[in-house]
Amino acid sequence: MTARLITFSTGGETRYGLWRPEGITDLSAVFGERWSTLKEVIEAGTLTEIVETAPDRIDFQESEIEFLIPVTNPEKIICVGVNFPDRNEEYKDGQTAPKNPSLFIRFPRSFVGHKQALRRPPESPQLDYEGEIVVVIGKAGRRIPEDKALEHIAALSLCNEGTIRDWVRHAKFNVTQGKNFDGTGSIGPWLVPFVSEEQIRDAKLITRVNGETRQHDRTGRMIFSFRKIISYISTFTTLVPGDVIVTGTPTGAGARLEPPVWLKPGDVVEVEATGLGRLENSIADEE
Amino acid sequence: MTARLITFSTGGETRYGLWRPEGITDLSAVFGERWSTLKEVIEAGTLTEIVETAPDRIDFQESEIEFLIPVTNPEKIICVGVNFPDRNEEYKDGQTAPKNPSLFIRFPRSFVGHKQALRRPPESPQLDYEGEIVVVIGKAGRRIPEDKALEHIAALSLCNEGTIRDWVRHAKFNVTQGKNFDGTGSIGPWLVPFVSEEQIRDAKLITRVNGETRQHDRTGRMIFSFRKIISYISTFTTLVPGDVIVTGTPTGAGARLEPPVWLKPGDVVEVEATGLGRLENSIADEE
Repeated sequence: MTARLITFSTGGETRYGLWRPEGITDLSAVFGERWSTLKEVIEAGTLTEIVETAPDRIDFQESEIEFLIPVTNPEKIICVGVNFPDRNEEYKDGQTAPKNPSLFIRFPRSFVGHKQALRRPPESPQLDYEGEIVVVIGKAGRRIPEDKALEHIAALSLCNEGTIRDWVRHAKFNVTQGKNFDGTGSIGPWLVPFVSEEQIRDAKLITRVNGETRQHDRTGRMIFSFRKIISYISTFTTLVPGDVIVTGTPTGAGARLEPPVWLKPGDVVEVEATGLGRLENSIADEE
Repeated sequence: MTARLITFSTGGETRYGLWRPEGITDLSAVFGERWSTLKEVIEAGTLTEIVETAPDRIDFQESEIEFLIPVTNPEKIICVGVNFPDRNEEYKDGQTAPKNPSLFIRFPRSFVGHKQALRRPPESPQLDYEGEIVVVIGKAGRRIPEDKALEHIAALSLCNEGTIRDWVRHAKFNVTQGKNFDGTGSIGPWLVPFVSEEQIRDAKLITRVNGETRQHDRTGRMIFSFRKIISYISTFTTLVPGDVIVTGTPTGAGARLEPPVWLKPGDVVEVEATGLGRLENSIADEE
């Protein structure tokens, strides 16, 4: 069965472990002295090793833990904009599909873990969802050729790249503000080790709000492939282990409905993809 | 005299210290066990304390060290675009001055320290300079009111916010790519502790290329004040100690000359501001 690696907090401590339907195996108890975080496990290249040598016991029930984002302190989180068909048309700016991926940056503190509430800030009611697939880099590289790009992936995950829509165009350039309100997005529930291109070749990606499907597409239709994204980003910056790439969302965000429909307290958003599980978050007003 | 705190490497180690014209005092030797980096000193709120209790001795000559960026691993580096008069007009897009600052993110690895060569990548000849003043956050805060904003500043520095101009518009949105080529900008030479608003009220900011003045303006003419920038950014993200804000460049970058003039190997760029010293970098082709 596919391994599912989580970072979680319990009893005031941050730990990592293996998630299974019957409960959680605490890997910090076994490997924590060698590698204090999943990022350090990835840096050491031992993600597969800790899965294979994990003890067969349950240390916590899911009710005893809180999910955190799987890599809590990546050097960088790079997000791809406009990467599925129909998304480019949604912008209605008369431009044809772009030649290069549009990229923006999010800070780790803009994300919460699985089953934590996304926080709607008092500044705007326009909290919107974007379901996406996440790539976590395992091997450093610069100017990585496309035919070697997949060798640099350590793991996959899911993202609800939650956005404060009106703040995306709050200033003249760049979407920074609307993409970086604290706790407005989520990553998780877990990391699935990357073992084969089959995992991402044509995975289904679905976003539901209160059970209703709002986004659904397949990674085979991405404008910029996983290979292209990794190769392109590494043209300008050195990718390092633990780096997170959020690879773009299908059409159907709340902003595209007529009239637009924003997330509100009580809503539940689910992002699901073939082989990667289901990332679920409720919405709450920021306190 | 104003204190000047540097992060530097020598003998394969990263250390911090006090720069004086006669040489460098190694503060890592004195305080390193308590605070391993300048960021940790800032987090502890002891920047003034280590200056006042520093020993009066010289441990290194400048020729024995390499300057690094003063905060090597900030949680975030946030840059303000279009923040001086005439810069908005330069865009010639018929839009009036923006209501809110445009913001983008740079990764630490896009910067080198004082006297290190900026690296011109093989992908483009359009390496350009942008002289700017840097604010380093000392006290965490969210939704900081403008009248309290300066209390959150720990120190000041300078930045050459070097840019690969054609890659700024490589994709549909966002300037991410052109602002994040490894080693294309610089921060330094040092941190100057922030003690009074007088330091930034109307500081002169000058950029020279090979001794010729290309940019010169005063912070009193900034479109968005230091207070406004800190307050605005903290609306969406929690600012934490060590965070770096790069506050915008005056008119006169090489892209604005007719015809444009790009930096080339052998050039020397200097960014200077009242009370903050002079940040100097040569240019070299990336190897």
